[in-house]
Amino acid sequence: TIFVITPTYARLVQKAELTRMSQTFLHVPRLHWILVEDSPHKTPLVTDLLMKSGLTYTHLHMPTAKDRKLQEGDPNWLKPRGVEQRNEGLRWLREDRRAQPGGDNQQGVVYFADDDNTYSLQLFEEMRSTQRVSVWPVGLVGGMKYERPVVEGGKVVRFHTGWRPSRPFPIDMAGFAVSLKLVLANPEACFDGEAPVGLLESSFLQGLVTMDELEPKADNCTKVLVWHTRTEKPKMKREEALQAQGLGSDPAVEFVPVTKTLQVWAGLACDVYEGSKLRSRLRVTHSDSHTERGKRREREICRNKPGAEGVCEKCTRGQKK
Amino acid sequence: TIFVITPTYARLVQKAELTRMSQTFLHVPRLHWILVEDSPHKTPLVTDLLMKSGLTYTHLHMPTAKDRKLQEGDPNWLKPRGVEQRNEGLRWLREDRRAQPGGDNQQGVVYFADDDNTYSLQLFEEMRSTQRVSVWPVGLVGGMKYERPVVEGGKVVRFHTGWRPSRPFPIDMAGFAVSLKLVLANPEACFDGEAPVGLLESSFLQGLVTMDELEPKADNCTKVLVWHTRTEKPKMKREEALQAQGLGSDPAVEFVPVTKTLQVWAGLACDVYEGSKLRSRLRVTHSDSHTERGKRREREICRNKPGAEGVCEKCTRGQKK
Ligand SMILES: O=c1ccn([C@@H]2O[C@H](COP(=O)(O)OP(=O)(O)O)[C@@H](O)[C@H]2O)c(=O)[nH]1
Ligand SMILES: O=c1ccn([C@@H]2O[C@H](COP(=O)(O)OP(=O)(O)O)[C@@H](O)[C@H]2O)c(=O)[nH]1
Ligand SMILES: [Mn+2]
Ligand SMILES: [Mn+2]
Repeated sequence: TIFVITPTYARLVQKAELTRMSQTFLHVPRLHWILVEDSPHKTPLVTDLLMKSGLTYTHLHMPTAKDRKLQEGDPNWLKPRGVEQRNEGLRWLREDRRAQPGGDNQQGVVYFADDDNTYSLQLFEEMRSTQRVSVWPVGLVGGMKYERPVVEGGKVVRFHTGWRPSRPFPIDMAGFAVSLKLVLANPEACFDGEAPVGLLESSFLQGLVTMDELEPKADNCTKVLVWHTRTEKPKMKREEALQAQGLGSDPAVEFVPVTKTLQVWAGLACDVYEGSKLRSRLRVTHSDSHTERGKRREREICRNKPGAEGVCEKCTRGQKK
Repeated sequence: TIFVITPTYARLVQKAELTRMSQTFLHVPRLHWILVEDSPHKTPLVTDLLMKSGLTYTHLHMPTAKDRKLQEGDPNWLKPRGVEQRNEGLRWLREDRRAQPGGDNQQGVVYFADDDNTYSLQLFEEMRSTQRVSVWPVGLVGGMKYERPVVEGGKVVRFHTGWRPSRPFPIDMAGFAVSLKLVLANPEACFDGEAPVGLLESSFLQGLVTMDELEPKADNCTKVLVWHTRTEKPKMKREEALQAQGLGSDPAVEFVPVTKTLQVWAGLACDVYEGSKLRSRLRVTHSDSHTERGKRREREICRNKPGAEGVCEKCTRGQKK
């Protein structure tokens, strides 16, 4: 199984990115998508998309700390993106495997796939045979037509990159995969959010493998099977003009099936979200939830919520939700 | 069958765009991709991609006249893009259907799909039932979250758009499909490259259908199943710096299998291309091609050329190549 760990966050193009990603993955046998939202909670948009995707998946979430998040106008390279989310994916995977020991379960490959790149189907077949860490070229990254490991005699001897080639692993996130075995054998290996620019991948790989041990794929790293594409931020000028006249696009159209996400806490309170913005909080107290009125309100709250029921906290104290 | 007509042109992200498009189309039954290169000849990159795609396809090419082509620095809206290529797709389709008459052959739907948009699988199922012209919302287009036809009583009554809503059909290229029957019954209907900004789609649809006849899809045009995404132009700063030192990325790595496209003209002359740039012209004269040296040269020329053999023009005069 190929475990694909993808950080994702809410912005205008998110649904499009995840749609085309999922349609690519749908062709790949034995792929398990671990999609980690950069969010304090799961959103209906991603929940719904995953449900309808036909894929095997795990839906997680882990918000980036405010001071670690890029602000409007920040240059791309200022803060690393997706770190907490990839680490959360690794954490879940390690915990999940520990809970089900057994040889077969420890087989697999882990790949970190950002949600705006472009992946060919052949890439996934190349990475399946990874024993420790395998590598290949990445197109359109680092200000280059491609970056790639340079292979001589079947071994990586150096890296073709435009920037600081002396880094331990000057490879983009999309340019390597790690065997599940190695990930489990090194439970502390993760991405260091404090790593200087360009050293994020090295912070993870350094503890796991040496350059000599890298397994070159894609015809000794001469084929580009993945591209570091980036999507333009759509202009919203006309939208803003219309909204000023009260004629903007109805938010209910784009986020299917609902605009509100409800987080139900054991029947005591519900946070009402629109997309990922908290709008209001409804309270249903312990006594309420045992009355008809309280139950009606809980049903109303739960009607739009994907998943769990509202349950009174007092009645569930001690139970895991 | 859904006939998808896509204009495409050579630039850094082209292979990535066509890869993810083809991977989406691979899920759609009874889809025939008509891919039209904006080029004086077919390129190996596209030829190779289509061959390996697993899709049913037709590979065409039609160059945009120099004065109609956007130059570096031109704003996007200055000249319409893809016009000659879509018209060439229509021309081929009409000719192909004429050559094989029969009821079944006239069934189908035509959709114009640009190579940088994002298409969900459900979109294709929605458009299959098109009788004349069907329409639906398009996300992230025209400076809006989405543009869409507004439907009342099952009919389109107006259009939700941010710009000149009084246009005959203020719908993006990605927001409609036409029945093959209608395309064949109106052989002059095509896209007008001289149409003012924003009226390209109207120039095609105006002769074909009235607003009242439009068939709304996607839940009465309340679901977004296609997004007008655009891909960032990759920066090449490091590539340029390395190239200045003679250490740039090897062009043979990205374009598989060859960097040169050869246009063989009946054995008389060959244009040698790199990507889509003409590099040099080799001549093999009539007398040459009957000598060993001439034949060796022709073989050398043909070795890298996908398809036709080099043949002496004099020997083939009157034959269609
Ligand atoms: O605030 C953010 C910004 C980005 N990402 C995710 O982190 C990954 C890397 O981000 P991005 O693609 O923008 O980085 P770049 O293309 O510049 O390398 C992507 O999967 C994003 O969806 C995220 O989770 N939160
Ligand atoms: O010189 C060009 C520019 C664009 N296109 C194609 O025409 C379509 C529309 O172009 P684009 O997506 O750039 O337009 P926009 O996104 O601005 O509507 C796409 O399929 C392009 O590949 C083309 O064939 N030649
Ligand atoms: Mn990215
Ligand atoms: Mn486009």
